[in-house]
Amino acid sequence: MQKKPQNEILEKIVSLAKRRGFVFQSSEIYGGLNGCWDYGPLGVELLKNIKEEWWKAMTFREDVEGLDASILMHPRVWEASGHVDSFTDPMIDCKSCKARFRLDVLGELINEKKKHKAVEELKLKFTDNPGWKDKFETVIQNAEKINGAVDEFSAAIEDSELNAILLSEVNCPQCGNKNTFTPARQFNLMFKTFIGPVEDSGAVVYLRPETAQGIFVNFLNVQSSARQKLPFGIAQIGKAFRNEINTKNFLFRTREFEQMEMQYFVNPVKDKEWYDYWKSERLNWFISLGMTKNKLRYHDHPVNKLAHYAKEATDIEYHFPFGWGEIEGIHNRTNFDLSRHEEFSGKSLKYFDEELKEKYIPYIIETSAGASRSFMAFLIDAYYEEEVNNEMRSVLKFHPKLAPIKAAILPLVNKDGMPEIARSIEKELRKRFKVFYDDKGAIGRRYRRMDEAGTPFSITVDTQTLSDQTVTIRERDSMNQIRISIDKISAYLNDIIFSD
Amino acid sequence: MQKKPQNEILEKIVSLAKRRGFVFQSSEIYGGLNGCWDYGPLGVELLKNIKEEWWKAMTFREDVEGLDASILMHPRVWEASGHVDSFTDPMIDCKSCKARFRLDVLGELINEKKKHKAVEELKLKFTDNPGWKDKFETVIQNAEKINGAVDEFSAAIEDSELNAILLSEVNCPQCGNKNTFTPARQFNLMFKTFIGPVEDSGAVVYLRPETAQGIFVNFLNVQSSARQKLPFGIAQIGKAFRNEINTKNFLFRTREFEQMEMQYFVNPVKDKEWYDYWKSERLNWFISLGMTKNKLRYHDHPVNKLAHYAKEATDIEYHFPFGWGEIEGIHNRTNFDLSRHEEFSGKSLKYFDEELKEKYIPYIIETSAGASRSFMAFLIDAYYEEEVNNEMRSVLKFHPKLAPIKAAILPLVNKDGMPEIARSIEKELRKRFKVFYDDKGAIGRRYRRMDEAGTPFSITVDTQTLSDQTVTIRERDSMNQIRISIDKISAYLNDIIFSD
Repeated sequence: MQKKPQNEILEKIVSLAKRRGFVFQSSEIYGGLNGCWDYGPLGVELLKNIKEEWWKAMTFREDVEGLDASILMHPRVWEASGHVDSFTDPMIDCKSCKARFRLDVLGELINEKKKHKAVEELKLKFTDNPGWKDKFETVIQNAEKINGAVDEFSAAIEDSELNAILLSEVNCPQCGNKNTFTPARQFNLMFKTFIGPVEDSGAVVYLRPETAQGIFVNFLNVQSSARQKLPFGIAQIGKAFRNEINTKNFLFRTREFEQMEMQYFVNPVKDKEWYDYWKSERLNWFISLGMTKNKLRYHDHPVNKLAHYAKEATDIEYHFPFGWGEIEGIHNRTNFDLSRHEEFSGKSLKYFDEELKEKYIPYIIETSAGASRSFMAFLIDAYYEEEVNNEMRSVLKFHPKLAPIKAAILPLVNKDGMPEIARSIEKELRKRFKVFYDDKGAIGRRYRRMDEAGTPFSITVDTQTLSDQTVTIRERDSMNQIRISIDKISAYLNDIIFSD
Repeated sequence: MQKKPQNEILEKIVSLAKRRGFVFQSSEIYGGLNGCWDYGPLGVELLKNIKEEWWKAMTFREDVEGLDASILMHPRVWEASGHVDSFTDPMIDCKSCKARFRLDVLGELINEKKKHKAVEELKLKFTDNPGWKDKFETVIQNAEKINGAVDEFSAAIEDSELNAILLSEVNCPQCGNKNTFTPARQFNLMFKTFIGPVEDSGAVVYLRPETAQGIFVNFLNVQSSARQKLPFGIAQIGKAFRNEINTKNFLFRTREFEQMEMQYFVNPVKDKEWYDYWKSERLNWFISLGMTKNKLRYHDHPVNKLAHYAKEATDIEYHFPFGWGEIEGIHNRTNFDLSRHEEFSGKSLKYFDEELKEKYIPYIIETSAGASRSFMAFLIDAYYEEEVNNEMRSVLKFHPKLAPIKAAILPLVNKDGMPEIARSIEKELRKRFKVFYDDKGAIGRRYRRMDEAGTPFSITVDTQTLSDQTVTIRERDSMNQIRISIDKISAYLNDIIFSD
């Protein structure tokens, strides 16, 4: 893994994304808002298409219902879910320059030599206090058990007793001063606001940090109104918010993002079967939309690293230019969520199984995909630079279903009746597809612009069109051209774009 | 206008909405969250279809680009827009029972007799102070000029000097005590939160109270990346939030809602032409999707009631069971927004007009529709109660494009090979349409269930199907049935549903 060329690729994509209107910084004219992004004309179409394909894959099934719950929810929801108490990150401040760091991020900011030195200093202190030596060894051993190989600094810094000593030995990565860190404190990542006119504790509500809870609290509403029987799922797409201290990697860690979550309710004895089913189903979804197979992998969570609610969990990871990163999580959440909501709301959330004549709280298999992260993975995965006739072209090889624009209509010259024919083709195709009309510049340049926008088909009206009512259709990836009669264009595109 | 039957209709629709899974109260198991609603399995499809039709009508045009900006924006945006200073409602508290009222809502809660008495008391005081008498008369005259006929109480209560006297004369509608109101204060309707780990004034951000500003600040980003020329528009669908003191009328006034906004940038000399164009275009959009024509009207704002940014403005109103209510606003916003953002950001937002060789700040014609309000209007407008064979049926006569489920597949009996055929029809249709399979209960009851869900077509597999491969298709509104060959169903539905 070479680091430099990979960051170069990310930089190129961020720059292309802005130039071509995929992604802009939020409030850019005001200097931007950290961790928030806007989707431009091409980006909003790509994002919509990803969400639409997910929605169809999920809710065009008999056993999955859709939902769109509000972002603001009753605050008790987040007490029941555990977010009020434990959706936190440990943080430290530099007393000297006021910089604030997430503890694990601090490790990344300090160079290896200094980390090594800090660990050596820490070990020196063991001569005064042999208890600490044992403590240190236990921490390292536990960390190794969980993560495999681990550096001593990262392991020690996450231990509440050891980090205080360790922190006194390292310099602040921002101001360079030593011995200026406060002890680590827990910081809740939920955005808090006040509902109603009085800003007191009784009026606190949160911006949801995940869409899942909106599904859990509606379990019985959906089940009874849609007359569903177990097993069945509830799917939802929507925004979520996390007050991340350190945002990074473009759309990968942001403060505002979109999720595509499906919660599948099952009889507890069938949890393993359905977990395996969805694990495979979800990986295949990414592949079916053209994502490179060998850039995708499962990362199964080891048993001792599972979240408090999970019995089994895996991440679907994509190989980003900065390394492997999660784009979706599949979790066996057991009956944790519904039990907690039953306890906190005082309302029974049990399901009566007519077949078994039995009442129980269902287990939940969750598939939780990031829409924003999927967007970024599809964008990066589609990006190619290729040499064509001694010139470089940048091309986004999106699956036709995901492509923001499905076809470009290009009259070869802007006269001789070509614009009129091209306009009538455009009008016909616009009924079904998002298309783009372009009559400006050399045809080669127009093709390149469409390559860069990821448009799979370019339809050119030329001299021959005038005599025989045919056009050429150029396919983006192969750059092959076929000749086709005007009245067959729509069906031709439709067959390719929406084939299964 | 009979009040009682109309509230009955609203109550029926709210109840149907919950029972059939259109709309649930947010966080219902926790007692709900005032002003927030969740869209259930049928509701989310209706809402999606409305948004999708709007999106197509807007962005499948050459002169409109799409955008999806973040909900959290740089706080300076809301200073420039004027929201920090003036997006406020006057409010009063009852010192006795702590109830809080919006001033104009208080008027609605007090009965006519008491209002009359308060005004009489007010007039009595004029004997001590003739200045107040003149003041009162001026206030009433101004109010009449603006609103036409107006009751004296409502006019006087909105005047800052008179309301204090008037309020001392009325009883609190909640506790009944007199002389307990605080003076009116301005209350900002934006939800406020803190970004980053420090909760101080430097970290304040707002939940956007409208989607429009996300478009304005991206004007040049979109224009240059999409290489657009004036006139062109930017369309966006997204959530917005207002901390309303008094929410009411189901989805009509809520704290979390969704907007469908398009801002059209024009040369200032062409503002009137484009204002008129969009005014007519937008009303026609509602009608084209089946909304009853005579329940729609324009409400043009009189010049002296225009918002500070507007040169001309109209509301498209729908006749709800509680009266006429705005579902969309069309505004000539002039160059107010871009000028303010230019001033506050220090970045030029001028457009260079290549044809005129001239630089100027465009005027903006805004079309601002409520997605949630449109949803409510389409739902109410579609609701009918009809007597069929001496029985009442409730039916939602949605336009086929908006219907949550496009077709139901119903095997007449659950044996004799009918389920197999029905399942194969279902499988075929599911590729294109959201469909529903139902084999439970008498066929009449199944039809009724589909009527109530607004499903336009019910396909029945019966004995004849077994011999000649035909089915009946029952149309929801007319209840007429036609017989059609199985291999023609998909094209038949497609033609009707997606015809223009």
